[in-house]
Amino acid sequence: MKQDKLTHFDEDGNPSMVDINSKNMTKRVAIASGKIKMQSETLKKILNIKIKKGDVLTIAKIAGIMAAKKTEQLIPLCHSIPLSYVNVDLSPDTKNSCVNIRAEASLVGKTGVEMEAFTAVTIASLTIYDMCKSIDREMVISDIKLIHKSGGKSGEFNAKV
Amino acid sequence: MKQDKLTHFDEDGNPSMVDINSKNMTKRVAIASGKIKMQSETLKKILNIKIKKGDVLTIAKIAGIMAAKKTEQLIPLCHSIPLSYVNVDLSPDTKNSCVNIRAEASLVGKTGVEMEAFTAVTIASLTIYDMCKSIDREMVISDIKLIHKSGGKSGEFNAKV
Amino acid sequence: MKQDKLTHFDEDGNPSMVDINSKNMTKRVAIASGKIKMQSETLKKILNIKIKKGDVLTIAKIAGIMAAKKTEQLIPLCHSIPLSYVNVDLSPDTKNSCVNIRAEASLVGKTGVEMEAFTAVTIASLTIYDMCKSIDREMVISDIKLIHKSGGKSGEFNAKV
Amino acid sequence: MKQDKLTHFDEDGNPSMVDINSKNMTKRVAIASGKIKMQSETLKKILNIKIKKGDVLTIAKIAGIMAAKKTEQLIPLCHSIPLSYVNVDLSPDTKNSCVNIRAEASLVGKTGVEMEAFTAVTIASLTIYDMCKSIDREMVISDIKLIHKSGGKSGEFNAKV
Amino acid sequence: MKQDKLTHFDEDGNPSMVDINSKNMTKRVAIASGKIKMQSETLKKILNIKIKKGDVLTIAKIAGIMAAKKTEQLIPLCHSIPLSYVNVDLSPDTKNSCVNIRAEASLVGKTGVEMEAFTAVTIASLTIYDMCKSIDREMVISDIKLIHKSGGKSGEFNAKV
Amino acid sequence: MKQDKLTHFDEDGNPSMVDINSKNMTKRVAIASGKIKMQSETLKKILNIKIKKGDVLTIAKIAGIMAAKKTEQLIPLCHSIPLSYVNVDLSPDTKNSCVNIRAEASLVGKTGVEMEAFTAVTIASLTIYDMCKSIDREMVISDIKLIHKSGGKSGEFNAKV
Repeated sequence: MKQDKLTHFDEDGNPSMVDINSKNMTKRVAIASGKIKMQSETLKKILNIKIKKGDVLTIAKIAGIMAAKKTEQLIPLCHSIPLSYVNVDLSPDTKNSCVNIRAEASLVGKTGVEMEAFTAVTIASLTIYDMCKSIDREMVISDIKLIHKSGGKSGEFNAKV
Repeated sequence: MKQDKLTHFDEDGNPSMVDINSKNMTKRVAIASGKIKMQSETLKKILNIKIKKGDVLTIAKIAGIMAAKKTEQLIPLCHSIPLSYVNVDLSPDTKNSCVNIRAEASLVGKTGVEMEAFTAVTIASLTIYDMCKSIDREMVISDIKLIHKSGGKSGEFNAKV
Repeated sequence: MKQDKLTHFDEDGNPSMVDINSKNMTKRVAIASGKIKMQSETLKKILNIKIKKGDVLTIAKIAGIMAAKKTEQLIPLCHSIPLSYVNVDLSPDTKNSCVNIRAEASLVGKTGVEMEAFTAVTIASLTIYDMCKSIDREMVISDIKLIHKSGGKSGEFNAKV
Repeated sequence: MKQDKLTHFDEDGNPSMVDINSKNMTKRVAIASGKIKMQSETLKKILNIKIKKGDVLTIAKIAGIMAAKKTEQLIPLCHSIPLSYVNVDLSPDTKNSCVNIRAEASLVGKTGVEMEAFTAVTIASLTIYDMCKSIDREMVISDIKLIHKSGGKSGEFNAKV
Repeated sequence: MKQDKLTHFDEDGNPSMVDINSKNMTKRVAIASGKIKMQSETLKKILNIKIKKGDVLTIAKIAGIMAAKKTEQLIPLCHSIPLSYVNVDLSPDTKNSCVNIRAEASLVGKTGVEMEAFTAVTIASLTIYDMCKSIDREMVISDIKLIHKSGGKSGEFNAKV
Repeated sequence: MKQDKLTHFDEDGNPSMVDINSKNMTKRVAIASGKIKMQSETLKKILNIKIKKGDVLTIAKIAGIMAAKKTEQLIPLCHSIPLSYVNVDLSPDTKNSCVNIRAEASLVGKTGVEMEAFTAVTIASLTIYDMCKSIDREMVISDIKLIHKSGGKSGEFNAKV
C-alpha cells in the first residue's frame, strides 16, 4: 500500500519522526543494490590482491555491515533498530569492469530496514573507492536502488527487472 | 601523479592505513557529486514542502554535513581529519526529475578529503530517499563521482566533462 | 510511586546501572521542556532567516532528534533503548524574546525515556546558540525540566503549573 | 568584534559550516556555566553518597568531559576540533540547594570552543538528573551561559556579573 | 551444545553476521573477568586517591559500562542489542599487586552478551592503565576470559576453576 | 622521565584531563602487544578459513584499526588526536596455539598514543574471540603491555625482554 503523503512531515509541514509505537512486530526484510564502475586494470588489481593476503572486498563487506548498524546515527529521522541480520555481497564483474554490491537487512520489528540495506551498499562502495583511489580516481558509483522489501502494512515490493 | 599501486596494501599484500606522518601540510580540497532520480510527483512534493515549513533538502544537507564529520568511523582505513570546511548543495532539477547533490570538503592537512566529500554526497542522497520513500520506492541514486581534487603531491584532478 | 533511594547506587554505595531484565514492557512517554533567551534582534534574525531558505529552528529540531538517539552514549548509566518516537517543537516567543523548546519521546519498553527527552531539549537549545552566537553571546538556556512522564510502575508525573 | 550577521548562513540564506581554512591558529579558551536546582533532601543524598564510595559528582564530571569530545557529533555545524583541555567543576551549594557546574575547554586552533564548554555543562547536568531522578523529578537545569571566551579575531568576552 | 563450525562464516567461507531472526527470546547472562598487574606503589596510589576525592576505580567502572553499550560499534559482526544490565566490579588485590576486574551483562533477547562483558572488562582495564601510566608503564593486562554464560540453545558455560 | 604523581588528578585529587596546550608537537610512536590463547583446533580453523575466502585475521585487523580511531570515545580522559598511522599485525603461532597481536600508532602531536595502540590490540583480540567463540569458549587474552614508546618529554621506553 503505497502512500500519497510524505510520512516524515506532519500536517503542518514540520519534519517529524514517524511514531511506530502502535505498529505490529513483523519480520521485515530489505535488499538494496548498487555498483561501482572502474578501469579494468583496477578490478584486476582488486582480484589479484584477493589471491594474496589483503582483500579489498572483505574489507568493503565488513565496512558495509558495520555501517548498517550506524544507520540511525546517519539518517536523521531513522529509528534505532536492533538488526537481526545484515549481509553484504560483492561480486566482481570483469565483463563490465565493475563490482556489484547487494546488501540484505532484516529484523522482527516495527519498522522497515531499507535504509540499513542502503547504508551498507553505499559505504561498501565508498570503501572500495577509498582503497583503490590511488590508482583510479574516476570510479563511479551508481544504480543504488531498492530490490526487495517485505513485512509491514505497505506489503511486498520487488524492483522491476 | 597517479600511482600504479594500491597504497592501502603493504608489500606483503596486507591491508594498511597509509602512514602520513611525513607528508606536508597543504590545503586540500575535494568536490564530489551525485544525483537521485525520482518520479516527477515526488520532486514536486519535495518542492512544495520546501515552500511550507519542513524542508527535505535542508535536512538532507545537514545530514550530509554531519556524515562528512564521521567519515573516519565509516571507511576503515581513512584517517581522522579535522575538516576546516564542508558544504553540501542540493539542486532540484525538474526537467530531469532528480536532485543533483554536490559536496565540497577542505582542510589544511596531510591527507586528502575525497572520502569526506563522497560520504556527504551519499548520506545526503540516502536522507532524501528516506524522507520520500513512503511515496516513491523506485528512486535511484547514481553518478557518484569525484569532480575535483587539489592539494598534496598527487596534484590537481578535474573530472572530464 | 517516588522512591527514597538513589536507584543508580547499590547497597554498598557503588554506582550501578539499574537492572531492568524483569521489568514489564509498557508504553513509556516523557516530555521535557526548556527555553533559550536572547536579544530581540537575535530572535528577529532567526525568524527572518526562516522566511528565507535556511532555517535555524529546523536545524535545531533535527539536532535534537538525532541527539535523543545518542542519549545512552552520553549519560553513563542510561540503557540503550530503541525509541519508537521522538519529536522536538520549537516555538519562538517574540514577547519574551526567547524560543521555547519541548521534546517528547516514547517507546514500548522496560524503562523510561525522560533522559532522551531532556537530551533532545538541551542539544536543540545548544544548536540555536551555536547558530546565533556570532551575533549574540549572551543567550541563556534555562528552565529545563520534566513536564510529563507516564508508564512504568512509578506512575504518571505532571509538572505543577 | 561582534558581528551583525549569522555566520552559519551564506548570502542566499542557506545554512553552512563556517570555512576556517584561512583562520589563524591561536589559543582559544571558553568557559560556560549552569546549575541544577533540587530539593535539599536530594542534595543531601548526593553529598552522603560522596562520602561513601559512589560519587554522583565524579560521574557527572566524567560524563561532561566525554561529551565535550563528542560536540561535533551533536551540534550540526560545529567543526571537529581536537581539544587540548577540558575540565568540569561541580560545586554543591547547600544554601541554594543546587549544584553549580562550570566547564572550561581550550585548544590552539582555528575556531572557538564555546560549544564544547556548553556541551560539557549540559551533559554533566543531565547526568546528575539521571542519577537522582528516582528521588526527585522536579530538578530544574538553568542559567546555562557563556562566562568567558578568548582567542580568535572576535576578541575576549566576559559575562557581566 | 558447542558447535564445530565457525558460525561467523557461511558455507562458502565468507564472513557473515549470524542471522538471529528465528532465535528465541530468552534471558542471556555473561560474566567475563581479567586483571591488570602493576607495581605495588601504583596500586597504593590508586587506593590513596580513592580515599581522597578522585577515584581511579570509579572512572574505570564507568568507562567499562559505557564501552559495553558500544560493543556492536567495535566488534564487526556483533549485533546491536539493547542491554538490560551491565555492571563492572573492580577489586584491588594488594597481595598480588593487581586489580581484578569482573563484568556482567544481561538481557532478554535473541543472542548472547559475552562480547559486551568482555568489552567492559578490557576498556575498564585500559582506563586504569591510562590513568596510572604517568607513574607505571609496565602494567600488564591478562587473564581476560569468560567466567559464565547462560541462556540460548548452547546452554550454560562455567569456566573451570 | 617517569613521574611520581598521577597526572590525571589535580592537586585536590580531582580527576582531570591533562592540559596539553603548551606541549610541543613532536613525533610520537607507541607499540603495544598481547596474545589470545586457544585450542589448537581453533587456530587450525582460523588458518584454514584464511586459505579460503573469509579471513578471521583480516577482520580482526580492521576492527583493531577502526577501534584505535575511537580511543578517545572509550577512555574517559584521553584526548581526541588525529592519528597519522595505525597498524595491527596478527601472527598465528601454532607451536603455542595462540595469535600474537601487535599494534603501532603514531602522529606528530602534543600527546602520546599508547592508548590508541592498546585499544587496537584489545579490540583485535576480542574480534578473534567473537568470531571463534562458537567453537571455543575458553580462549584467554593476556600479556597486553606496552612494548615501545617514543616522543614527548618523558623520553623513550622499551619493554624489558
